[in-house]
Amino acid sequence: MQIIKNPAREKWEDLLKRPVFDSASIQEKVRPILVDVRDNGDKAVNKYTQQFDGFVSETLQITDTEMAGIDQVLDESLRDAIHLAVNNITKFHQAQRFELQKMETWLGVTCWRKQIPIEKVGLYIPGGTAPLFSSLLMLGIPAMIAGCKEIILCTPPAKNGKIHPAILYSAHILGLEKIYKIGGAQAIAAMAYGTETVPKVYKIFGPGNQYVTAAKQLVTFDGVAIDMPAGPSEVAVIADDSANAEFIAWDLLSQAEHGTDSQVLLVTDSESICNQVDAKVNKHLQNLPRKSIAAEALKNSKLILADSMTTALDICNHYAPEHLIINTVNADEMAKQVINAGSVFIGPYTPESAGDYASGTNHTLPTNGYARSYSGVSLDSFMKNVTFQKIDAHGIEDIGWAIEEMAKAESLMAHKNAVTARLNAIKGVRSND
Amino acid sequence: MQIIKNPAREKWEDLLKRPVFDSASIQEKVRPILVDVRDNGDKAVNKYTQQFDGFVSETLQITDTEMAGIDQVLDESLRDAIHLAVNNITKFHQAQRFELQKMETWLGVTCWRKQIPIEKVGLYIPGGTAPLFSSLLMLGIPAMIAGCKEIILCTPPAKNGKIHPAILYSAHILGLEKIYKIGGAQAIAAMAYGTETVPKVYKIFGPGNQYVTAAKQLVTFDGVAIDMPAGPSEVAVIADDSANAEFIAWDLLSQAEHGTDSQVLLVTDSESICNQVDAKVNKHLQNLPRKSIAAEALKNSKLILADSMTTALDICNHYAPEHLIINTVNADEMAKQVINAGSVFIGPYTPESAGDYASGTNHTLPTNGYARSYSGVSLDSFMKNVTFQKIDAHGIEDIGWAIEEMAKAESLMAHKNAVTARLNAIKGVRSND
Repeated sequence: MQIIKNPAREKWEDLLKRPVFDSASIQEKVRPILVDVRDNGDKAVNKYTQQFDGFVSETLQITDTEMAGIDQVLDESLRDAIHLAVNNITKFHQAQRFELQKMETWLGVTCWRKQIPIEKVGLYIPGGTAPLFSSLLMLGIPAMIAGCKEIILCTPPAKNGKIHPAILYSAHILGLEKIYKIGGAQAIAAMAYGTETVPKVYKIFGPGNQYVTAAKQLVTFDGVAIDMPAGPSEVAVIADDSANAEFIAWDLLSQAEHGTDSQVLLVTDSESICNQVDAKVNKHLQNLPRKSIAAEALKNSKLILADSMTTALDICNHYAPEHLIINTVNADEMAKQVINAGSVFIGPYTPESAGDYASGTNHTLPTNGYARSYSGVSLDSFMKNVTFQKIDAHGIEDIGWAIEEMAKAESLMAHKNAVTARLNAIKGVRSND
Repeated sequence: MQIIKNPAREKWEDLLKRPVFDSASIQEKVRPILVDVRDNGDKAVNKYTQQFDGFVSETLQITDTEMAGIDQVLDESLRDAIHLAVNNITKFHQAQRFELQKMETWLGVTCWRKQIPIEKVGLYIPGGTAPLFSSLLMLGIPAMIAGCKEIILCTPPAKNGKIHPAILYSAHILGLEKIYKIGGAQAIAAMAYGTETVPKVYKIFGPGNQYVTAAKQLVTFDGVAIDMPAGPSEVAVIADDSANAEFIAWDLLSQAEHGTDSQVLLVTDSESICNQVDAKVNKHLQNLPRKSIAAEALKNSKLILADSMTTALDICNHYAPEHLIINTVNADEMAKQVINAGSVFIGPYTPESAGDYASGTNHTLPTNGYARSYSGVSLDSFMKNVTFQKIDAHGIEDIGWAIEEMAKAESLMAHKNAVTARLNAIKGVRSND
């Protein structure tokens, strides 16, 4: 891995650049697919499924026959593991409900917010090199807790037309019933516009490659919400002399094995840690099944030696990593100073993979620097907050003049008169008292 | 206004269609402006300001001289009104902070979420036909409460190069210091990419015309977050026989006067209310200063007579209005059944204009049916929720096996080994005990 020593602050921006993709050319490829699916429905979906997934079927939807016995297919130990994860993810997300808090902002002026589930949501789970059933748990569990009425799942089939049993099993225990063997931009289009088979949804969630991401961003122009724009996965580890280099090496490799475009950083004030980690990463890389992917990702990756741990944290805040692992003696204190990160892992025994699978936190997180402004997926992502207000006669008598003044100043006289009409009516009632 | 009687359910979709804009052609016009500002900074901004606002200045930023004495320029009554609004908006948004809730999802596995302010935000306030200082309050107050470090404001100058004093006064009492006389797509580009004068921000807020909206949506492809896509403003009023037709007429007109593309609906089971409101709208329209705008908007608008109040509410939920006014005997009960709306106004004395200005709720709300999936702006919009987790040795010993199982099943062996390395280390320590 590249080792960079004491980079000057004005060099950080360049040093921490993510791999850039030509999003315009990807959009140009995706746009006709979206239009085709919008206009031609299932027929277009089938065409692209054949073209991209090499699969043709009469039914896009998973049938009861395909689901039958799915709870016996997986090893018991994997099923138990999934149930442990479901338990923790459920606990963490269930606690995110907020109570209705009615408040009087003024005597007689009562205002509140209420969480209401989004009625129809679509989940996208990529196929590709790993069957990401864990992502299905991370999206499906909060969707169920939120109480979304219609939850649909699209995931691409393998060439034999099958979906990985761990994905089907996860869908089964979540109680999802509408599962479609569709991947890529055509899946996003099907959920955004609806087809004869696939219901239209109001919000689309889930990770995917650059085509899926471009499709998600493009359908927002047509009124469909998305969880967040997604980029390649990334981790930054901040470590001092106290850290275990073996742990760090595996944390870096576990991000690097995600994809060739993943990025991993170690930021430390310890030259010894830097060198140890470099050696261990190179050693362990040799025996990794996904060696070629990880090796490619490590080319985008850096070991940064900072002049102090304060600078190290500044670098991490500047980078705004999706995952930030803090492996230092004062990890708790450092965690309090984090400004930009998707999810933070504190101390030696908190590997990122815990949060990826089973600690309970959500692993759908902002990448590509989006952690500066976006939150990861949570229960909130499946709800909207609607504001309510109720003003009584005394309330509007009290604050009405202010509304009239402001409306006049904005030259919106009907806004003013909507209040004046009420004040006059109240005066009329009072004078008849 | 058009009166539609008992529309069949399968006709609702068509009946409730919003005016559609050719977003592709607007994007084509906006894209070169974005690229130009990104590449040429202030020079490009000045060019478009001259072209679109007919104004040239040496300084894009409002100077101290321009701000001097601003607190004396407005009438005292308007200043008092603004202070009342600030008070209520502050109360409502301050209550939206959530407490850190640490929880053990498993013994030794502690997880929590923390609200952290977005460091740099940009507010856009349109000029145009009304000086929307109220929108500045709605965005600036939660930004200040959130604790955003850098809050910048862009708003277009009039042809004489001036910003309306009510906007400057509102900025002044909020303590905003970086105010730029820039409007339109060039303002969005300046905030998204930064120029010599305008700092780059991470999230852009605020209403605007179709060009501003297209610009906001396009910069999301370059990593900048936005509050929400905005469309024309709209209100639906649901009323029964008990309602005061005069109030409803003004509520409809106050939305219609916003812009020619605004849409207003009345849904009722009372033919008498329908006819009374129609007559009163036509009468009051004649004396409205913004008569021509409101008249145009009323062409897109409808009075819908439903077969029951249950159907009336179904129609409103289907429409998903930005604003929903419930003016019925059982308004409180009906409010509980609202599924899709941006903000709900309950009872006869709660005009929409109260929420537009001074009750305390935010008036930056999802339009164009986005209320199905988006929330209005709130304190949350200026913060991100970062997840944290800390696992101790016992915790990872307990749940580590499940992470290993799941990582293996996803063929991510480094993910597994990040746990295995820790379990081995703990075993080593224990065996040395």
